[in-house]
Amino acid sequence: MVNWFPWRRTRRRVEVPRLRPRGDAEAATKVDLADLTPDALTLLGRAAYVQLMIFENLSTAVAAAPSAESKDLLGRVAAASLARQNGLRLEIERHGAEPGAAMQPFMAEIDAYQRATQGADWFEMLVSCHVTAGFLDNFFARLATGLPTEAATRLKAVYATDAAAELLAGEIRDAIAEQPLLSSRLAMWGRRLVGDTMLIARASLASSTNKVSDEARIEPVFTELIAAHTRRMDALGLTA
Amino acid sequence: MVNWFPWRRTRRRVEVPRLRPRGDAEAATKVDLADLTPDALTLLGRAAYVQLMIFENLSTAVAAAPSAESKDLLGRVAAASLARQNGLRLEIERHGAEPGAAMQPFMAEIDAYQRATQGADWFEMLVSCHVTAGFLDNFFARLATGLPTEAATRLKAVYATDAAAELLAGEIRDAIAEQPLLSSRLAMWGRRLVGDTMLIARASLASSTNKVSDEARIEPVFTELIAAHTRRMDALGLTA
Repeated sequence: MVNWFPWRRTRRRVEVPRLRPRGDAEAATKVDLADLTPDALTLLGRAAYVQLMIFENLSTAVAAAPSAESKDLLGRVAAASLARQNGLRLEIERHGAEPGAAMQPFMAEIDAYQRATQGADWFEMLVSCHVTAGFLDNFFARLATGLPTEAATRLKAVYATDAAAELLAGEIRDAIAEQPLLSSRLAMWGRRLVGDTMLIARASLASSTNKVSDEARIEPVFTELIAAHTRRMDALGLTA
Repeated sequence: MVNWFPWRRTRRRVEVPRLRPRGDAEAATKVDLADLTPDALTLLGRAAYVQLMIFENLSTAVAAAPSAESKDLLGRVAAASLARQNGLRLEIERHGAEPGAAMQPFMAEIDAYQRATQGADWFEMLVSCHVTAGFLDNFFARLATGLPTEAATRLKAVYATDAAAELLAGEIRDAIAEQPLLSSRLAMWGRRLVGDTMLIARASLASSTNKVSDEARIEPVFTELIAAHTRRMDALGLTA
Protein backbone atom coordinates (compact mmCIF):
# COMPACT_ATOMS: atom_id res chain seq x y z
CA MET A 1 0.00 0.00 0.00
CA VAL A 2 1.19 3.49 -0.75
CA ASN A 3 2.14 5.49 2.31
CA TRP A 4 -0.04 8.57 1.84
CA PHE A 5 1.40 10.36 4.85
CA PRO A 6 5.18 10.19 4.44
CA TRP A 7 5.77 12.98 6.97
CA ARG A 8 4.43 10.71 9.70
CA ARG A 9 7.07 8.15 8.87
CA THR A 10 10.43 8.52 10.54
CA ARG A 11 12.48 6.23 8.39
CA ARG A 12 10.21 3.30 9.25
CA ARG A 13 10.41 0.73 6.49
CA VAL A 14 7.01 -0.07 4.96
CA GLU A 15 6.86 -3.69 3.88
CA VAL A 16 4.81 -4.33 0.77
CA PRO A 17 4.55 -7.23 -1.65
CA ARG A 18 6.97 -6.62 -4.52
CA LEU A 19 7.14 -8.14 -7.98
CA ARG A 20 10.84 -7.59 -8.54
CA PRO A 21 13.95 -7.69 -6.41
CA ARG A 22 14.85 -4.34 -4.82
CA GLY A 23 18.25 -4.34 -6.49
CA ASP A 24 16.70 -3.30 -9.82
CA ALA A 25 14.58 -0.49 -8.43
CA GLU A 26 14.97 2.07 -11.24
CA ALA A 27 14.16 -0.28 -14.10
CA ALA A 28 11.41 -1.95 -12.12
CA THR A 29 9.74 1.37 -11.41
CA LYS A 30 9.63 2.38 -15.04
CA VAL A 31 8.18 -0.90 -16.22
CA ASP A 32 5.72 -0.96 -13.36
CA LEU A 33 4.29 2.44 -14.11
CA ALA A 34 4.12 1.77 -17.83
CA ASP A 35 1.80 -1.11 -17.01
CA LEU A 36 -0.52 1.37 -15.34
CA THR A 37 -0.45 3.99 -18.10
CA PRO A 38 -4.01 4.59 -19.34
CA ASP A 39 -4.81 4.83 -23.03
CA ALA A 40 -3.10 7.76 -24.78
CA LEU A 41 -6.03 10.16 -25.07
CA THR A 42 -7.10 9.65 -21.46
CA LEU A 43 -3.57 10.37 -20.31
CA LEU A 44 -3.09 13.33 -22.65
CA GLY A 45 -6.47 14.91 -21.93
CA ARG A 46 -5.92 14.75 -18.21
CA ALA A 47 -2.28 15.89 -18.38
CA ALA A 48 -3.24 18.83 -20.63
CA TYR A 49 -6.05 19.92 -18.33
CA VAL A 50 -3.78 19.58 -15.29
CA GLN A 51 -1.25 21.78 -17.07
CA LEU A 52 -3.94 24.34 -17.81
CA MET A 53 -4.77 24.35 -14.10
CA ILE A 54 -1.08 24.83 -13.23
CA PHE A 55 -1.04 27.74 -15.67
CA GLU A 56 -4.19 29.25 -14.12
CA ASN A 57 -2.64 29.11 -10.65
CA LEU A 58 0.51 30.79 -11.95
CA SER A 59 -1.45 33.50 -13.72
CA THR A 60 -3.45 34.16 -10.55
CA ALA A 61 -0.09 34.65 -8.85
CA VAL A 62 1.01 37.01 -11.65
CA ALA A 63 -2.11 39.12 -11.05
CA ALA A 64 -1.61 39.10 -7.26
CA ALA A 65 2.12 39.83 -7.36
CA PRO A 66 3.12 42.85 -5.26
CA SER A 67 5.69 44.29 -7.69
CA ALA A 68 6.38 44.49 -11.39
CA GLU A 69 9.52 42.44 -10.80
CA SER A 70 7.52 39.57 -9.27
CA LYS A 71 4.95 39.81 -12.05
CA ASP A 72 7.71 39.64 -14.62
CA LEU A 73 9.29 36.59 -13.04
CA LEU A 74 6.00 34.74 -12.56
CA GLY A 75 5.03 35.61 -16.12
CA ARG A 76 8.08 33.68 -17.30
CA VAL A 77 7.07 30.67 -15.21
CA ALA A 78 3.53 30.92 -16.61
CA ALA A 79 4.92 31.04 -20.15
CA ALA A 80 6.89 27.84 -19.53
CA SER A 81 3.74 26.13 -18.26
CA LEU A 82 1.73 27.30 -21.29
CA ALA A 83 4.46 26.04 -23.61
CA ARG A 84 4.20 22.64 -21.96
CA GLN A 85 0.42 22.73 -22.23
CA ASN A 86 0.78 23.56 -25.89
CA GLY A 87 3.02 20.51 -26.36
CA LEU A 88 0.31 18.35 -24.79
CA ARG A 89 -2.49 19.83 -26.89
CA LEU A 90 -0.46 19.31 -30.06
CA GLU A 91 0.02 15.68 -29.04
CA ILE A 92 -3.75 15.36 -28.58
CA GLU A 93 -4.21 16.69 -32.12
CA ARG A 94 -1.61 14.20 -33.38
CA HIS A 95 -3.78 11.49 -31.90
CA GLY A 96 -6.68 12.78 -34.03
CA ALA A 97 -8.66 14.43 -31.24
CA GLU A 98 -9.69 17.98 -30.38
CA PRO A 99 -7.90 19.29 -27.26
CA GLY A 100 -11.02 20.82 -25.67
CA ALA A 101 -13.00 17.60 -26.06
CA ALA A 102 -10.11 15.50 -24.77
CA MET A 103 -9.75 17.66 -21.64
CA GLN A 104 -13.44 18.13 -20.85
CA PRO A 105 -13.99 14.82 -18.96
CA PHE A 106 -11.40 15.84 -16.35
CA MET A 107 -12.63 19.38 -15.77
CA ALA A 108 -14.85 18.79 -12.71
CA GLU A 109 -12.31 16.62 -10.89
CA ILE A 110 -9.32 18.88 -11.52
CA ASP A 111 -11.26 22.08 -10.83
CA ALA A 112 -12.24 20.68 -7.42
CA TYR A 113 -8.60 19.84 -6.72
CA GLN A 114 -7.63 23.35 -7.81
CA ARG A 115 -10.11 24.99 -5.43
CA ALA A 116 -8.75 22.92 -2.54
CA THR A 117 -5.12 23.74 -3.26
CA GLN A 118 -4.99 27.41 -4.31
CA GLY A 119 -3.91 28.76 -0.94
CA ALA A 120 -5.20 31.57 1.20
CA ASP A 121 -2.58 34.22 0.47
CA TRP A 122 0.30 35.16 -1.79
CA PHE A 123 2.82 32.88 -0.03
CA GLU A 124 0.63 29.79 0.03
CA MET A 125 -0.21 30.51 -3.60
CA LEU A 126 3.45 30.46 -4.57
CA VAL A 127 4.09 27.22 -2.67
CA SER A 128 1.01 25.67 -4.31
CA CYS A 129 2.26 26.59 -7.77
CA HIS A 130 5.69 25.14 -7.08
CA VAL A 131 4.77 22.01 -5.14
CA THR A 132 1.77 20.83 -7.15
CA ALA A 133 3.38 21.54 -10.52
CA GLY A 134 6.61 19.83 -9.40
CA PHE A 135 4.82 16.70 -8.27
CA LEU A 136 2.33 16.45 -11.13
CA ASP A 137 4.85 17.22 -13.87
CA ASN A 138 7.13 14.49 -12.47
CA PHE A 139 4.19 12.14 -12.33
CA PHE A 140 2.85 12.70 -15.84
CA ALA A 141 6.34 12.68 -17.33
CA ARG A 142 6.85 9.27 -15.76
CA LEU A 143 3.42 8.02 -16.79
CA ALA A 144 4.04 9.11 -20.40
CA THR A 145 6.98 6.71 -20.66
CA GLY A 146 4.35 3.97 -20.89
CA LEU A 147 2.98 5.31 -24.20
CA PRO A 148 4.11 3.95 -27.59
CA THR A 149 7.74 4.95 -28.28
CA GLU A 150 7.22 7.94 -30.60
CA ALA A 151 4.65 9.66 -28.42
CA ALA A 152 6.73 8.86 -25.34
CA THR A 153 9.78 10.50 -26.93
CA ARG A 154 7.87 13.65 -27.86
CA LEU A 155 6.37 13.93 -24.38
CA LYS A 156 9.77 13.47 -22.80
CA ALA A 157 10.82 16.63 -24.67
CA VAL A 158 7.64 18.45 -23.57
CA TYR A 159 8.36 17.72 -19.91
CA ALA A 160 12.12 18.23 -20.19
CA THR A 161 11.99 22.05 -20.42
CA ASP A 162 11.92 23.06 -16.80
CA ALA A 163 14.09 26.15 -16.50
CA ALA A 164 11.26 28.07 -14.87
CA ALA A 165 10.79 26.05 -11.67
CA GLU A 166 13.97 27.46 -10.18
CA LEU A 167 12.68 31.02 -10.67
CA LEU A 168 9.64 30.18 -8.58
CA ALA A 169 11.71 28.46 -5.90
CA GLY A 170 13.91 31.55 -5.66
CA GLU A 171 10.85 33.77 -5.16
CA ILE A 172 9.63 31.55 -2.30
CA ARG A 173 13.08 31.45 -0.67
CA ASP A 174 13.23 35.25 -0.82
CA ALA A 175 9.83 35.53 0.84
CA ILE A 176 10.86 33.15 3.64
CA ALA A 177 14.16 34.95 4.14
CA GLU A 178 12.24 38.19 4.67
CA GLN A 179 9.65 36.63 6.97
CA PRO A 180 11.15 33.57 8.69
CA LEU A 181 7.94 33.00 10.66
CA LEU A 182 6.32 31.88 7.39
CA SER A 183 8.29 28.61 7.46
CA SER A 184 6.11 26.52 9.72
CA ARG A 185 2.87 27.64 8.07
CA LEU A 186 4.22 26.95 4.59
CA ALA A 187 5.64 23.58 5.64
CA MET A 188 2.18 22.62 6.93
CA TRP A 189 0.62 23.86 3.69
CA GLY A 190 3.08 21.77 1.69
CA ARG A 191 1.95 18.63 3.54
CA ARG A 192 -1.68 19.35 2.85
CA LEU A 193 -0.83 19.90 -0.82
CA VAL A 194 1.08 16.69 -1.28
CA GLY A 195 -1.77 14.65 0.21
CA ASP A 196 -4.35 16.10 -2.20
CA THR A 197 -1.91 15.89 -5.10
CA MET A 198 -1.17 12.21 -4.56
CA LEU A 199 -4.88 11.47 -4.65
CA ILE A 200 -5.22 13.22 -8.01
CA ALA A 201 -2.20 11.36 -9.34
CA ARG A 202 -3.51 8.05 -8.04
CA ALA A 203 -6.82 8.62 -9.83
CA SER A 204 -4.93 9.00 -13.12
CA LEU A 205 -3.65 5.43 -13.17
CA ALA A 206 -5.24 2.61 -15.07
CA SER A 207 -6.08 -0.42 -12.94
CA SER A 208 -6.14 -4.12 -13.63
CA THR A 209 -8.29 -6.79 -12.01
CA ASN A 210 -5.45 -7.62 -9.63
CA LYS A 211 -5.53 -4.86 -7.02
CA VAL A 212 -2.70 -6.33 -4.95
CA SER A 213 -0.42 -6.44 -7.96
CA ASP A 214 -1.46 -2.86 -8.93
CA GLU A 215 -0.57 -1.53 -5.51
CA ALA A 216 2.78 -3.28 -5.63
CA ARG A 217 3.51 -1.52 -8.90
CA ILE A 218 2.34 1.86 -7.72
CA GLU A 219 4.18 1.90 -4.42
CA PRO A 220 7.77 2.37 -5.62
CA VAL A 221 6.69 5.09 -8.05
CA PHE A 222 5.03 7.11 -5.33
CA THR A 223 7.98 6.54 -3.05
CA GLU A 224 10.14 8.19 -5.70
CA LEU A 225 7.70 11.03 -6.30
CA ILE A 226 7.54 11.69 -2.57
CA ALA A 227 11.33 11.67 -2.36
CA ALA A 228 11.42 14.30 -5.15
CA HIS A 229 8.78 16.30 -3.28
CA THR A 230 10.92 16.14 -0.12
CA ARG A 231 13.95 17.40 -2.03
CA ARG A 232 11.80 20.22 -3.47
CA MET A 233 10.65 21.25 0.01
CA ASP A 234 14.21 20.96 1.37
CA ALA A 235 15.42 23.30 -1.38
CA LEU A 236 12.88 25.85 -0.12
CA GLY A 237 14.17 25.39 3.42
CA LEU A 238 10.86 23.79 4.42
CA THR A 239 10.30 20.51 6.27
CA ALA A 240 8.48 17.99 4.09
CA MET B 1 -8.05 68.38 -30.52
CA VAL B 2 -8.64 64.66 -30.45
CA ASN B 3 -12.27 63.64 -30.57
CA TRP B 4 -12.47 61.42 -27.49
CA PHE B 5 -16.04 60.40 -28.15
CA PRO B 6 -16.12 59.26 -31.77
CA TRP B 7 -19.46 57.50 -31.37
CA ARG B 8 -21.12 60.87 -30.81
CA ARG B 9 -19.84 62.03 -34.17
CA THR B 10 -21.98 61.29 -37.16
CA ARG B 11 -19.50 61.89 -39.93
CA ARG B 12 -19.06 65.50 -38.84
CA ARG B 13 -15.66 66.69 -39.97
CA VAL B 14 -13.49 67.98 -37.13
CA GLU B 15 -11.30 70.87 -38.28
CA VAL B 16 -7.92 71.01 -36.61
CA PRO B 17 -4.67 72.79 -37.40
CA ARG B 18 -2.53 70.46 -39.47
CA LEU B 19 1.18 70.52 -40.19
CA ARG B 20 1.04 68.66 -43.48
CA PRO B 21 -1.34 68.52 -46.40
CA ARG B 22 -4.04 65.85 -46.04
CA GLY B 23 -2.97 64.20 -49.28
CA ASP B 24 0.03 62.60 -47.59
CA ALA B 25 -1.89 61.22 -44.63
CA GLU B 26 -0.10 57.89 -44.18
CA ALA B 27 3.44 59.28 -44.22
CA ALA B 28 2.42 62.30 -42.19
CA THR B 29 0.91 60.14 -39.47
CA LYS B 30 4.02 58.06 -39.04
CA VAL B 31 6.34 61.03 -38.80
CA ASP B 32 3.94 62.83 -36.48
CA LEU B 33 3.77 60.01 -33.98
CA ALA B 34 7.50 59.38 -34.09
CA ASP B 35 7.94 62.97 -32.89
CA LEU B 36 5.87 62.07 -29.83
CA THR B 37 7.62 58.78 -29.04
CA PRO B 38 9.04 58.97 -25.50
CA ASP B 39 12.54 57.73 -24.71
CA ALA B 40 13.05 54.01 -25.34
CA LEU B 41 12.93 52.71 -21.77
CA THR B 42 9.84 54.72 -20.89
CA LEU B 43 8.07 53.37 -23.95
CA LEU B 44 9.27 49.79 -23.43
CA GLY B 45 8.53 49.70 -19.70
CA ARG B 46 5.00 50.94 -20.25
CA ALA B 47 4.35 48.73 -23.26
CA ALA B 48 5.67 45.66 -21.38
CA TYR B 49 3.50 46.37 -18.33
CA VAL B 50 0.47 46.98 -20.55
CA GLN B 51 1.12 43.64 -22.22
CA LEU B 52 1.35 41.96 -18.81
CA MET B 53 -2.05 43.47 -17.99
CA ILE B 54 -3.48 42.17 -21.28
CA PHE B 55 -2.12 38.76 -20.37
CA GLU B 56 -3.64 38.93 -16.89
CA ASN B 57 -7.06 39.74 -18.33
CA LEU B 58 -6.77 36.83 -20.74
CA SER B 59 -5.71 34.45 -18.00
CA THR B 60 -8.65 35.57 -15.83
CA ALA B 61 -10.83 34.67 -18.81
CA VAL B 62 -9.08 31.27 -19.08
CA ALA B 63 -9.91 30.59 -15.43
CA ALA B 64 -13.54 31.74 -15.84
CA ALA B 65 -14.15 29.88 -19.12
CA PRO B 66 -17.19 27.61 -19.01
CA SER B 67 -15.70 24.70 -20.95
CA ALA B 68 -12.36 23.03 -21.58
CA GLU B 69 -12.67 24.06 -25.22
CA SER B 70 -12.94 27.75 -24.29
CA LYS B 71 -10.09 27.41 -21.85
CA ASP B 72 -7.97 25.80 -24.51
CA LEU B 73 -8.69 28.54 -27.03
CA LEU B 74 -8.13 31.39 -24.57
CA GLY B 75 -4.94 29.71 -23.40
CA ARG B 76 -3.62 30.06 -26.94
CA VAL B 77 -4.49 33.76 -26.99
CA ALA B 78 -2.80 34.19 -23.60
CA ALA B 79 0.31 32.42 -24.90
CA ALA B 80 0.49 34.85 -27.84
CA SER B 81 0.24 37.79 -25.44
CA LEU B 82 2.97 36.37 -23.19
CA ALA B 83 5.20 35.82 -26.22
CA ARG B 84 4.75 39.49 -27.11
CA GLN B 85 5.45 40.51 -23.53
CA ASN B 86 8.61 38.42 -23.62
CA GLY B 87 9.72 40.25 -26.77
CA LEU B 88 9.27 43.55 -24.94
CA ARG B 89 11.13 42.40 -21.82
CA LEU B 90 14.03 41.15 -23.96
CA GLU B 91 14.14 44.56 -25.63
CA ILE B 92 14.29 46.20 -22.19
CA GLU B 93 17.26 43.96 -21.35
CA ARG B 94 18.91 44.90 -24.64
CA HIS B 95 18.65 48.51 -23.50
CA GLY B 96 20.60 47.55 -20.38
CA ALA B 97 17.71 47.67 -17.92
CA GLU B 98 15.93 45.13 -15.74
CA PRO B 99 12.34 44.46 -16.93
CA GLY B 100 10.75 44.64 -13.47
CA ALA B 101 12.38 47.97 -12.70
CA ALA B 102 11.47 49.37 -16.13
CA MET B 103 7.80 48.40 -15.68
CA GLN B 104 7.37 49.42 -12.03
CA PRO B 105 6.72 53.17 -12.63
CA PHE B 106 3.60 52.33 -14.68
CA MET B 107 2.10 49.78 -12.31
CA ALA B 108 -0.31 52.04 -10.38
CA GLU B 109 -1.66 53.79 -13.48
CA ILE B 110 -2.16 50.63 -15.55
CA ASP B 111 -3.57 48.64 -12.61
CA ALA B 112 -6.21 51.35 -12.13
CA TYR B 113 -7.06 51.19 -15.83
CA GLN B 114 -7.28 47.40 -15.57
CA ARG B 115 -9.73 47.54 -12.65
CA ALA B 116 -11.95 49.92 -14.60
CA THR B 117 -11.98 47.80 -17.74
CA GLN B 118 -12.17 44.17 -16.63
CA GLY B 119 -15.89 43.78 -17.16
CA ALA B 120 -18.65 42.43 -14.94
CA ASP B 121 -19.13 39.01 -16.51
CA TRP B 122 -17.68 36.49 -18.94
CA PHE B 123 -18.92 38.32 -22.05
CA GLU B 124 -17.72 41.76 -21.05
CA MET B 125 -14.43 40.15 -20.05
CA LEU B 126 -13.98 38.70 -23.54
CA VAL B 127 -14.82 42.02 -25.20
CA SER B 128 -12.38 43.81 -22.87
CA CYS B 129 -9.58 41.42 -23.77
CA HIS B 130 -10.20 41.85 -27.47
CA VAL B 131 -10.92 45.58 -27.65
CA THR B 132 -8.28 46.89 -25.26
CA ALA B 133 -5.54 44.61 -26.58
CA GLY B 134 -6.46 45.48 -30.17
CA PHE B 135 -6.31 49.21 -29.55
CA LEU B 136 -3.22 49.23 -27.33
CA ASP B 137 -1.21 46.83 -29.47
CA ASN B 138 -1.95 48.99 -32.52
CA PHE B 139 -0.97 52.06 -30.57
CA PHE B 140 2.32 50.79 -29.15
CA ALA B 141 3.30 49.19 -32.46
CA ARG B 142 2.81 52.60 -34.07
CA LEU B 143 4.62 54.43 -31.29
CA ALA B 144 7.59 52.05 -31.54
CA THR B 145 8.22 53.16 -35.12
CA GLY B 146 9.64 56.33 -33.58
CA LEU B 147 12.50 54.46 -31.88
CA PRO B 148 15.96 54.14 -33.46
CA THR B 149 15.84 51.89 -36.53
CA GLU B 150 17.15 48.63 -35.06
CA ALA B 151 14.89 48.65 -32.03
CA ALA B 152 11.97 49.75 -34.21
CA THR B 153 12.56 46.79 -36.54
CA ARG B 154 12.70 44.29 -33.69
CA LEU B 155 9.52 45.67 -32.14
CA LYS B 156 7.75 45.56 -35.49
CA ALA B 157 8.38 41.81 -35.42
CA VAL B 158 7.18 41.56 -31.80
CA TYR B 159 3.87 43.21 -32.68
CA ALA B 160 3.50 41.48 -36.04
CA THR B 161 2.60 38.05 -34.62
CA ASP B 162 -1.12 38.34 -34.16
CA ALA B 163 -2.65 35.02 -35.11
CA ALA B 164 -4.50 34.83 -31.80
CA ALA B 165 -6.82 37.86 -32.03
CA GLU B 166 -9.07 36.12 -34.53
CA LEU B 167 -9.58 33.21 -32.10
CA LEU B 168 -10.89 35.62 -29.50
CA ALA B 169 -13.12 37.41 -32.00
CA GLY B 170 -14.62 34.06 -33.02
CA GLU B 171 -15.39 33.23 -29.39
CA ILE B 172 -17.22 36.55 -28.96
CA ARG B 173 -19.17 36.12 -32.20
CA ASP B 174 -20.25 32.65 -31.05
CA ALA B 175 -21.46 34.06 -27.73
CA ILE B 176 -23.48 36.79 -29.47
CA ALA B 177 -24.94 34.31 -31.97
CA GLU B 178 -26.20 32.23 -29.04
CA GLN B 179 -27.56 35.22 -27.11
CA PRO B 180 -28.40 38.04 -29.55
CA LEU B 181 -29.65 40.23 -26.68
CA LEU B 182 -26.03 40.63 -25.60
CA SER B 183 -25.32 42.91 -28.56
CA SER B 184 -26.49 46.22 -27.19
CA ARG B 185 -24.89 45.72 -23.79
CA LEU B 186 -21.57 44.69 -25.34
CA ALA B 187 -21.68 47.59 -27.81
CA MET B 188 -22.13 49.96 -24.86
CA TRP B 189 -19.29 48.26 -23.02
CA GLY B 190 -17.05 48.66 -26.06
CA ARG B 191 -17.66 52.42 -26.05
CA ARG B 192 -16.78 52.71 -22.40
CA LEU B 193 -13.61 50.70 -23.05
CA VAL B 194 -12.39 52.78 -25.95
CA GLY B 195 -12.79 55.98 -23.93
CA ASP B 196 -10.67 54.70 -21.05
CA THR B 197 -8.19 53.13 -23.44
CA MET B 198 -7.62 56.34 -25.39
CA LEU B 199 -6.83 58.12 -22.15
CA ILE B 200 -4.17 55.54 -21.27
CA ALA B 201 -2.72 55.78 -24.77
CA ARG B 202 -2.72 59.57 -24.65
CA ALA B 203 -0.80 59.49 -21.36
CA SER B 204 1.94 57.46 -23.04
CA LEU B 205 2.94 60.20 -25.47
CA ALA B 206 5.81 62.56 -24.97
CA SER B 207 4.90 66.22 -25.18
CA SER B 208 6.72 69.27 -26.40
CA THR B 209 6.35 72.88 -25.26
CA ASN B 210 4.01 73.53 -28.19
CA LYS B 211 0.68 71.99 -27.15
CA VAL B 212 -1.16 73.10 -30.29
CA SER B 213 1.42 71.45 -32.49
CA ASP B 214 1.34 68.29 -30.32
CA GLU B 215 -2.43 67.98 -30.66
CA ALA B 216 -2.17 68.46 -34.39
CA ARG B 217 0.23 65.55 -34.54
CA ILE B 218 -1.79 63.32 -32.26
CA GLU B 219 -5.14 63.82 -33.94
CA PRO B 220 -4.64 61.87 -37.18
CA VAL B 221 -3.07 58.97 -35.26
CA PHE B 222 -6.06 58.64 -32.97
CA THR B 223 -8.39 58.98 -35.92
CA GLU B 224 -6.70 55.93 -37.42
CA LEU B 225 -6.72 53.98 -34.17
CA ILE B 226 -10.43 54.72 -33.75
CA ALA B 227 -11.09 53.61 -37.32
CA ALA B 228 -9.31 50.32 -36.55
CA HIS B 229 -11.38 50.02 -33.36
CA THR B 230 -14.56 50.55 -35.38
CA ARG B 231 -13.55 47.82 -37.82
CA ARG B 232 -12.82 45.51 -34.87
CA MET B 233 -16.28 46.16 -33.39
CA ASP B 234 -17.90 45.74 -36.82
CA ALA B 235 -16.21 42.37 -37.19
CA LEU B 236 -17.88 41.32 -33.92
CA GLY B 237 -21.22 42.54 -35.24
CA LEU B 238 -21.24 45.35 -32.66
CA THR B 239 -21.87 49.06 -33.21
CA ALA B 240 -18.81 51.13 -32.39
